[in-house]
Amino acid sequence: MATTELFLKMTFDRWYGSITNLNAILSNLTDETLQKEIAPGKNRGVYLLGHLIAVHDEMLKLLDLGEKLYPELYEPFIKSPDKVVTQIPTAAELRSFWTKQCEVLKQKFDSLKPEEWFEKHTAVSAEDFVNEPHRNKLNIIITRTSHLQYHSGQLVLLK
Amino acid sequence: MATTELFLKMTFDRWYGSITNLNAILSNLTDETLQKEIAPGKNRGVYLLGHLIAVHDEMLKLLDLGEKLYPELYEPFIKSPDKVVTQIPTAAELRSFWTKQCEVLKQKFDSLKPEEWFEKHTAVSAEDFVNEPHRNKLNIIITRTSHLQYHSGQLVLLK
Repeated sequence: MATTELFLKMTFDRWYGSITNLNAILSNLTDETLQKEIAPGKNRGVYLLGHLIAVHDEMLKLLDLGEKLYPELYEPFIKSPDKVVTQIPTAAELRSFWTKQCEVLKQKFDSLKPEEWFEKHTAVSAEDFVNEPHRNKLNIIITRTSHLQYHSGQLVLLK
Repeated sequence: MATTELFLKMTFDRWYGSITNLNAILSNLTDETLQKEIAPGKNRGVYLLGHLIAVHDEMLKLLDLGEKLYPELYEPFIKSPDKVVTQIPTAAELRSFWTKQCEVLKQKFDSLKPEEWFEKHTAVSAEDFVNEPHRNKLNIIITRTSHLQYHSGQLVLLK
């Protein structure tokens, strides 16, 4: 296997493995449990799920893969901390957004050619990219995998 | 930058970024706070810190980089769940182990040549590695970064 393909496999195995792990956690939580705080005074499960969807939606822009699926989630789940915006989707709605989004992201990721993952993402200038070639599209997958794991470790506490 | 070096930079930036992030979390927690559970009935901070050290110690074996620094942590922090083994190091001792271990790991990681990261790790057979070349040493760094992030998301709840 060529080195580039190998590295893509390693990166995407971890991304999809993290998605599968979160799906297993979510399938063990009821909608009612998702309304609870992960620890006293901390974020609710429903906020963390909305936050993950909103952050993954930003990936579409960063990777130049089209428009966000749920732009309305930015305000309540990224810009605002939990419990500030009172009108948010239900747990059932967020689950459905999450499932749909995972499918769309996979489809769009699969459409990129291996070498395209090493092109710059949209938040870095062409000028900076010359000296910082690690700020490529694949790095967005790597950093968001970290982010997903961080919050998965929190959501699992609701079990 | 050659492709191999680029992969290594992306992977290790995330590893060291995750270590720095956990150090920032730990520096905001007192030893007393680390004795508390991250959520009611869940693991204590001190258990998670011991667990991370024990898991990172296993990396030394997997990467063929020598003996574990703290083999005595396997029993209380990997084999046993929290609160089963009552005699465990203090929070201050664990902090000191963690700091020392991070230094040793960095030194040992830096001693490997770029291409050596794409060699097999010690838990995969030479036979299996032919068909599964992603089971290399670099993949140990990738998977343990995920693990570190998962538990960092839990330790931060003690703040």
